[in-house]
Amino acid sequence: MRIVVPEQATGRLTDAWRACVGTGRFELALRRDYQESLAVVQRDIGFRHIRGHGLFSDGTGVYRPYEHQGSRQVRYAFTYVDQVIDAYLALGVRPFLELGFMPAALASGDQTVFWWRGNVTPPRSWTDWADLVRATLRHLVDRYGLDEVRHWPIEVWNEPNLTVFWQNADQDAYHRLYEVTAHAVKEVDAALQVGGPAISPGSDEWLLPFAEFVTARSVPVDFVSRHAYTSGPAQHVPFGTHQTLAPASSLLDQFASPRRHLRGSALAELPVHITEFNSSYRPDNRVHDTAFNAAYLAPVVAVGGDLVDSFSYWTFSDIFEEEGVPTSLFHGGFGLLTHRQIKKPTYHLYAFMARLGDEVLARGPDHLVTRDAAGRIAVLAWAPVDAAGDTPGPDRHTVRLSLPLGTATGAAFLLRSSVDEEVGNAWTAWCEMGRPHSPTTRQLDNLREAAEAARRHARLPIEGGRVALDLHLSRHEVTLAELTAVADETPPWWDDDRLLGR
Amino acid sequence: MRIVVPEQATGRLTDAWRACVGTGRFELALRRDYQESLAVVQRDIGFRHIRGHGLFSDGTGVYRPYEHQGSRQVRYAFTYVDQVIDAYLALGVRPFLELGFMPAALASGDQTVFWWRGNVTPPRSWTDWADLVRATLRHLVDRYGLDEVRHWPIEVWNEPNLTVFWQNADQDAYHRLYEVTAHAVKEVDAALQVGGPAISPGSDEWLLPFAEFVTARSVPVDFVSRHAYTSGPAQHVPFGTHQTLAPASSLLDQFASPRRHLRGSALAELPVHITEFNSSYRPDNRVHDTAFNAAYLAPVVAVGGDLVDSFSYWTFSDIFEEEGVPTSLFHGGFGLLTHRQIKKPTYHLYAFMARLGDEVLARGPDHLVTRDAAGRIAVLAWAPVDAAGDTPGPDRHTVRLSLPLGTATGAAFLLRSSVDEEVGNAWTAWCEMGRPHSPTTRQLDNLREAAEAARRHARLPIEGGRVALDLHLSRHEVTLAELTAVADETPPWWDDDRLLGR
Amino acid sequence: MRIVVPEQATGRLTDAWRACVGTGRFELALRRDYQESLAVVQRDIGFRHIRGHGLFSDGTGVYRPYEHQGSRQVRYAFTYVDQVIDAYLALGVRPFLELGFMPAALASGDQTVFWWRGNVTPPRSWTDWADLVRATLRHLVDRYGLDEVRHWPIEVWNEPNLTVFWQNADQDAYHRLYEVTAHAVKEVDAALQVGGPAISPGSDEWLLPFAEFVTARSVPVDFVSRHAYTSGPAQHVPFGTHQTLAPASSLLDQFASPRRHLRGSALAELPVHITEFNSSYRPDNRVHDTAFNAAYLAPVVAVGGDLVDSFSYWTFSDIFEEEGVPTSLFHGGFGLLTHRQIKKPTYHLYAFMARLGDEVLARGPDHLVTRDAAGRIAVLAWAPVDAAGDTPGPDRHTVRLSLPLGTATGAAFLLRSSVDEEVGNAWTAWCEMGRPHSPTTRQLDNLREAAEAARRHARLPIEGGRVALDLHLSRHEVTLAELTAVADETPPWWDDDRLLGR
Amino acid sequence: MRIVVPEQATGRLTDAWRACVGTGRFELALRRDYQESLAVVQRDIGFRHIRGHGLFSDGTGVYRPYEHQGSRQVRYAFTYVDQVIDAYLALGVRPFLELGFMPAALASGDQTVFWWRGNVTPPRSWTDWADLVRATLRHLVDRYGLDEVRHWPIEVWNEPNLTVFWQNADQDAYHRLYEVTAHAVKEVDAALQVGGPAISPGSDEWLLPFAEFVTARSVPVDFVSRHAYTSGPAQHVPFGTHQTLAPASSLLDQFASPRRHLRGSALAELPVHITEFNSSYRPDNRVHDTAFNAAYLAPVVAVGGDLVDSFSYWTFSDIFEEEGVPTSLFHGGFGLLTHRQIKKPTYHLYAFMARLGDEVLARGPDHLVTRDAAGRIAVLAWAPVDAAGDTPGPDRHTVRLSLPLGTATGAAFLLRSSVDEEVGNAWTAWCEMGRPHSPTTRQLDNLREAAEAARRHARLPIEGGRVALDLHLSRHEVTLAELTAVADETPPWWDDDRLLGR
Repeated sequence: MRIVVPEQATGRLTDAWRACVGTGRFELALRRDYQESLAVVQRDIGFRHIRGHGLFSDGTGVYRPYEHQGSRQVRYAFTYVDQVIDAYLALGVRPFLELGFMPAALASGDQTVFWWRGNVTPPRSWTDWADLVRATLRHLVDRYGLDEVRHWPIEVWNEPNLTVFWQNADQDAYHRLYEVTAHAVKEVDAALQVGGPAISPGSDEWLLPFAEFVTARSVPVDFVSRHAYTSGPAQHVPFGTHQTLAPASSLLDQFASPRRHLRGSALAELPVHITEFNSSYRPDNRVHDTAFNAAYLAPVVAVGGDLVDSFSYWTFSDIFEEEGVPTSLFHGGFGLLTHRQIKKPTYHLYAFMARLGDEVLARGPDHLVTRDAAGRIAVLAWAPVDAAGDTPGPDRHTVRLSLPLGTATGAAFLLRSSVDEEVGNAWTAWCEMGRPHSPTTRQLDNLREAAEAARRHARLPIEGGRVALDLHLSRHEVTLAELTAVADETPPWWDDDRLLGR
Repeated sequence: MRIVVPEQATGRLTDAWRACVGTGRFELALRRDYQESLAVVQRDIGFRHIRGHGLFSDGTGVYRPYEHQGSRQVRYAFTYVDQVIDAYLALGVRPFLELGFMPAALASGDQTVFWWRGNVTPPRSWTDWADLVRATLRHLVDRYGLDEVRHWPIEVWNEPNLTVFWQNADQDAYHRLYEVTAHAVKEVDAALQVGGPAISPGSDEWLLPFAEFVTARSVPVDFVSRHAYTSGPAQHVPFGTHQTLAPASSLLDQFASPRRHLRGSALAELPVHITEFNSSYRPDNRVHDTAFNAAYLAPVVAVGGDLVDSFSYWTFSDIFEEEGVPTSLFHGGFGLLTHRQIKKPTYHLYAFMARLGDEVLARGPDHLVTRDAAGRIAVLAWAPVDAAGDTPGPDRHTVRLSLPLGTATGAAFLLRSSVDEEVGNAWTAWCEMGRPHSPTTRQLDNLREAAEAARRHARLPIEGGRVALDLHLSRHEVTLAELTAVADETPPWWDDDRLLGR
Repeated sequence: MRIVVPEQATGRLTDAWRACVGTGRFELALRRDYQESLAVVQRDIGFRHIRGHGLFSDGTGVYRPYEHQGSRQVRYAFTYVDQVIDAYLALGVRPFLELGFMPAALASGDQTVFWWRGNVTPPRSWTDWADLVRATLRHLVDRYGLDEVRHWPIEVWNEPNLTVFWQNADQDAYHRLYEVTAHAVKEVDAALQVGGPAISPGSDEWLLPFAEFVTARSVPVDFVSRHAYTSGPAQHVPFGTHQTLAPASSLLDQFASPRRHLRGSALAELPVHITEFNSSYRPDNRVHDTAFNAAYLAPVVAVGGDLVDSFSYWTFSDIFEEEGVPTSLFHGGFGLLTHRQIKKPTYHLYAFMARLGDEVLARGPDHLVTRDAAGRIAVLAWAPVDAAGDTPGPDRHTVRLSLPLGTATGAAFLLRSSVDEEVGNAWTAWCEMGRPHSPTTRQLDNLREAAEAARRHARLPIEGGRVALDLHLSRHEVTLAELTAVADETPPWWDDDRLLGR
Repeated sequence: MRIVVPEQATGRLTDAWRACVGTGRFELALRRDYQESLAVVQRDIGFRHIRGHGLFSDGTGVYRPYEHQGSRQVRYAFTYVDQVIDAYLALGVRPFLELGFMPAALASGDQTVFWWRGNVTPPRSWTDWADLVRATLRHLVDRYGLDEVRHWPIEVWNEPNLTVFWQNADQDAYHRLYEVTAHAVKEVDAALQVGGPAISPGSDEWLLPFAEFVTARSVPVDFVSRHAYTSGPAQHVPFGTHQTLAPASSLLDQFASPRRHLRGSALAELPVHITEFNSSYRPDNRVHDTAFNAAYLAPVVAVGGDLVDSFSYWTFSDIFEEEGVPTSLFHGGFGLLTHRQIKKPTYHLYAFMARLGDEVLARGPDHLVTRDAAGRIAVLAWAPVDAAGDTPGPDRHTVRLSLPLGTATGAAFLLRSSVDEEVGNAWTAWCEMGRPHSPTTRQLDNLREAAEAARRHARLPIEGGRVALDLHLSRHEVTLAELTAVADETPPWWDDDRLLGR
């Protein structure tokens, strides 16, 4: 059956899908590979904000107490912070600030998270913490200007509902942290945007108490944040993890959850930011490297913007050290790109999204049809997946569309870009290569070639103002079909048969 | 039938195929698009020398007579020459100098060639010409060093056997030009390499007299040069030309011709340089833009080095103005690249050549098998073409090989790169687009994407030290298959079935 | 006597000084050195528009008549035009279009101007000319968008009052050209800006008839344009010219002249663009290379914006071929930069201008004092020159200022940048080097080093909210003094005397 | 008195001064600012090798034990090592490998050094350590080739004579470490170069026992290494240190010390590498930022190559974290460059060295005169300093030379480059600015401008084949004077008096 796509737009594609992207800890942004990777991502995708942990952790060197003439004082040092944010802005992306973790010198305890030891205990002094927050935001406002910093959402801490991220997952302590922090932020400028509670999936029971707390105590809050993942318990192997996955629709469910839980509260109308999402929450689950992941997430990325104001893919690059330095080029990292900037299939899903128009003409379970101001039709389509893994997923899938394309007759130029289990798939190539941990320069070059999306092109007839487009998808394929009406400049004397002088 | 490729190398693949490439006139090298195009070519192909016309034409501004205190003097100005050669060397390519055409102020007549009006008449003063040659070479030696300039072959004029290129195609006048020039060159340094007669196809009767002339008069000559083309008479249409083509083997015949004609002469053992070759000699024959051209030339590029010391594809870029400024992006230019650096199929033929090893294991009418020092096997294969155009050429063609690959058992990683009528073929895409003369930025981007070679990859078993490789080629396909033995680093706990946590 | 600069701004520094800059003929912009030079200029100076000759001359290949099936037709080819304008926009500068000269195939005569042979005769068909204008503007609007192209002023021809630029300097023929062209432009879009008459100095008697003509015939006109130069008759030497110069004030006089002549006419209130100005109008007068030129023009650049809407330095680069290919690195070219991007003193005058604030605090015969939004004071000062050459100009000159700087007490950081006969003066270094025509790479490097402005810095006291600044200038010095109030972060334990541990 | 420099060379300037440079710990090389800084350094200076700590520390993630099926195994992961060394080689510099510190998982104890916690205890298993060394070198040889890796000196550990760097400064344990390591290295390839003992100043009594140990046990050793510093005890202030300095001659003394101590031993003839040197050994002593440092070290850099095979400035960049993240742009770091690539005076000392010729014509206490193959004379001169700080050092100092320059008469072009307390001195400018910890973008730009060496130029007469050169130096000035004989191309009609047309 061919779906007849209406000529009239049914809505707009919001920017929520690219409003934010995740990153490894703050100071990793000092790296060259990181910045070059981000430049690639920004050229092809163009995220608006970037969010990661560790702004206040010791690796950035911000909080620097010292003694002078017998008294303890603090120098706030922004040597690295400035260098990172300068780089972000130069690359056309703004920080989504996450305030955390605790500087060791300000911490009340020793508990740390990750290989890089982020301290997750409350401050030993709430006053000193507030000073740190104010000093940091004042510095940022001084350096980047108030107009700029007002565009940077400021989130208080990360997943305080988990004991690994916040000592004892102490809800009252988080509320206090939020209160002190939000006031400190607003003292710098009342128009700065602050929010929380940045909870992980499965703890939505934190939402209403948070709303009640801030309402009761008149604590400022400009947005609500939550994370979303679909993976089950970790099954560890050396340097890796296996996990089951819930269906992708579960992600959309999770996106919708904050508004559902806050209905009727004072926070009901606030923007909702999904400040992290992905299939698996593990940085060593090789599902992230696959075409499955792209096809699995395609329907989420295509419609998530209907539910929330942003949903931030966790993360843009494998440059990430929560479980230590990766021991192999492909290792199941979160990245859209591996180290050395090899594109994974999910990278292409995002790059395809960036080529969609902003008028939505049609949506379906396996497609999204858009048009841009120049009249170009862009269709994103994807193969269905079996997230349970009971089957490998269908090996063929067809989407048939009748697309409206301007003039009554003529021709359309079709450019089709695809990734699947074979093409645009460096991971498959890497497996075939023998899964080399440290590929040679030649192997890296080959992987970069293997990672490019496959391109096909054709000329299709326009009849009655419509083009019939049949998209045959292979297993786990994600594809972009772009159609433009041909303005034919072929001169009247053109004759293909005379190419060889006959 | 499967061809069993021997393990033992049968010869070496010389550098002759990339010893030189052609270019539009000298000062076009000042352009940014030109230099960026050359950078692309050098990265993927790596030519050793570059040769074009017009070093002494007025566009370079070298020969600058003036009057001072009543006497006529000459300033030799190298403002542009230096800038061009600085750029060449920075891009890793050396000039193959062609001495010509005649500066207007030194010319004995008004006859010019090309839209850009190269004067093709003898000098009005042989002394002044010799001064110009000496001054130029002295300057080059001063600036670039003798060690460097000794690597630059120096050719005297271009196609003097044609009346369009040399007034009256006057053979005696050419011999005199050659004599005066060769002596002038050698006065600067006896080890500089000078040669000629740079004749076009169909005038091999010039060779023996040239040999006899230089022998009789003891004129220095270090190499012999000739051009090779296979196209028939020009059938003009507006902004274009159609021509018949002789079979590609005619090019090899032409390559062999100088040695054949000079057998027994004093020049018999000299290096032979084919300083121009292509299918058509017209810069507006769209055959140059096609996959046909790549498949047609593949057997020539693959074996030409057995016959001559260099054969120089005419030319690396469509930045070329002999027939005026091109009026359309694709216009039948000679280039491996169009303006704006879009790769044509023949570009890929050369890029594939650059990935071959230097041991030749086997050759055939549709393939060339090589191995490099690291043991990587690289196979170039091509579909047969019908140059007469009686048929479109076969739509399928298969090459079956048994390839020796190191260890007795295991696996090989295959990376296959292809161009044909559809993939790696921006020309087809441009035709489908409606042949836009001045493509938009988006169209240029799409054409660049369409121009990339298609990549496939696979893992093949090694049995008995051999890999069975079946290459199925489509119409006009040229393909590169690279095989490397897999050093498997897959850990023992790897299990594809656990990807989704089962 | 110290000049007390008021705290209150007396006016704003308009953008007129950088509203436009001149360039060699259109297609020179295809060159790499040109584009790299323009990138340097845009980074340090930031011109808004760029204007040069030759958009329709044969070198751009726009007008391409052909025969098909017995009828004569025209293809308009924008291969180079697009490439140039794409490059301009990418470099942040817009074209100031000059419509001219005549395509040979459309010309009514053979008369040409310049080494590169721009045809300066009227069209053989006014209809065909109008078609060319319309086709070109329609193409530009299609490619770049109407919003963009409406920002590009469109000037009709160049210096029609001179017989070298317009056959017989035929005023009626120019009026007809203007009329046909202006209507053709407005047919494409009524909001495109068109103007003329682009006359050279000394022919202001053309202005009023032009006003009367357009008024009488209701011909659209959006701006008036004129050129300004101060040099006397050319005294030729080989590859060079000497000329006397009128005082720089003559340039300001010329700037004011169109408004003076048009007072009372219908064109009285139109924008005035000085579409070319410089000291000498010759591209081989070495005065352009000197510090004298910078000091001579400083008062003009500093105040010209009070008189006109733009005044366009002719030209940004020595890449320019009106008198043929330059035979020497320094050759008296118009450029702010030589070939190979060596900065001349006048380059620095413009780069200093670009660092001024936009509030004007004071002006004087040897200085201009500005402040920017951040409170930084920037002073441009220059030594007086003797344009008559009776004396070498004073060897010392002092400007004493009392500058308002925010807080009552404290300190200011002064950064002073200078060029004069010695520093920031590659021309002097080149003369000392022996005036090498084709400098070696090492010499070019040395010249680049010699060309950098000299920098000094100091800390000055603020007393009573003021800084006393004494600027001692050497011969032909142009200097920029930038002062910012110091926010002192020196820690209390800092002690310079302990540097060596004492 | 004028020193008459002989025409005949007295020796050659070896490459020892640039044979090696120091760097912060290994993985800092992943940073963009680091790599861009190194690119600047390599362009202007061109070091041959680079040496830093931490190849085996946890930040590089090399040593990765894991459990599988009940047994403990080790994966050696070169993810970061490859990325760093790829970058080094791309920048034209080779690693000088330092094997250390101990991976935590292989360490026998918990003692660490530096903010970044390098473990300084012996391995818990000598076998496992030897495995790590062999695996690493085998990987490097596989990836980079034996020919390449044989050029990389391999040093065993760092300053084992200090308890902070080697638990208990246990000499026997170091000998054992050296023995195990040297054998492991040589098992990979007998031609790899291994050496030690990398001792700090003041422990030369370690040298002879080391020689005796390796001789007695036939342990391979290819070079001897030691460090050299002249600073006294640290006097701490917050974020800084003050120290007295011994005279610079003490450094030369220390350079000579290994050969002196090893005279008569089996190691007497081995190459000696000073693998670290500087004035102060503290990364927070602001003496490193000053012109004093450059003038103080000039005589050491100028003659050190007479004594040793390399002496490695510690370090090329302030990107260095031994005392934590620097809290201020200038902070007394070791770097030739600050963060953000601002050149310190000592940077220029090295850049000047890189412009010397390789023939030494004369040496003196305040100068070094050289000539290159092209005949250019380059003089490095420096002002004397008072290292004790009793006086500020002389404010003027003159070096008078008579220099041989080719032809009997004519002229020389002099280009002089200088740094002193004012020019080429970003530190002075930064102090004047109020010592901003985190300079704004504009301040960084100003500092970069202030950091450029001052350039002057002149034309000096050659008389009797000699040029009289008077170099007047200001306080702490280091200067480079380059003289080349002028090949005068001034045309006969040149007349400076006609510049203004008179």
